[in-house]
Amino acid sequence: MQALGQHLLVELRDCNKILLNDLKMTEAFMVDAAKEARATVIGAHFHEFSPHGISGVVIIAESHLSIHTWPEYGYAAVDVFTCGDVLQPSVAADYLVKKFESKNPSLIEVRRGTLSLDGRALPHKPSEEKL
Amino acid sequence: MQALGQHLLVELRDCNKILLNDLKMTEAFMVDAAKEARATVIGAHFHEFSPHGISGVVIIAESHLSIHTWPEYGYAAVDVFTCGDVLQPSVAADYLVKKFESKNPSLIEVRRGTLSLDGRALPHKPSEEKL
Repeated sequence: MQALGQHLLVELRDCNKILLNDLKMTEAFMVDAAKEARATVIGAHFHEFSPHGISGVVIIAESHLSIHTWPEYGYAAVDVFTCGDVLQPSVAADYLVKKFESKNPSLIEVRRGTLSLDGRALPHKPSEEKL
Repeated sequence: MQALGQHLLVELRDCNKILLNDLKMTEAFMVDAAKEARATVIGAHFHEFSPHGISGVVIIAESHLSIHTWPEYGYAAVDVFTCGDVLQPSVAADYLVKKFESKNPSLIEVRRGTLSLDGRALPHKPSEEKL
């Protein structure tokens, strides 16, 4: 079974609450995390909520990174969704653990789009193949 | 254990390939799915890739929906991430299964931000609580 996408569900617990409520820092960390993983950043969209909490998405050529923060609980839910063989999504996860100063992180890895192709190779975007 | 977020990982297999490669339709389906689930849409950001494939995110006040399509395999990876008690994320998932004509969908539900609060209630955004 080969997979089209690699999806990391990262639980950042016991983080620095001030950082989790700082829109500019959160956006910078997420964009930098994408770059650390060698992703090509296409766009970043972040929003601040009242009374606190930030949601944001970094769209990359190889899929996306997202974050939702609950500063009041010192918690953030991060997703790193990538495709292709070049990227190293765990590098992005490690980077965010460090930057948000999470003292109790955990990670689940999910393989998305597992297809049975009878041994055929699984090109990411096969240019030669027509729909 | 209570959870801050509810996260559906939806595997849409055996979809209509033409729809999976239609940027406008994909965006419309995703925004409508958010609305069907009673989410408040804040923004939508969609991109088309060469030779085919679409990535997009709908940012909602209650978190996000995302999609990555591989038309060449008739497959899309959808995530529906919500918080709060009002939304019905499975309604969004069901809506997308129908719209993309997936003949072989599957779904994993992940509870994000499970916190042990010793029986205390878990307010989503407690306005009275300071950081």
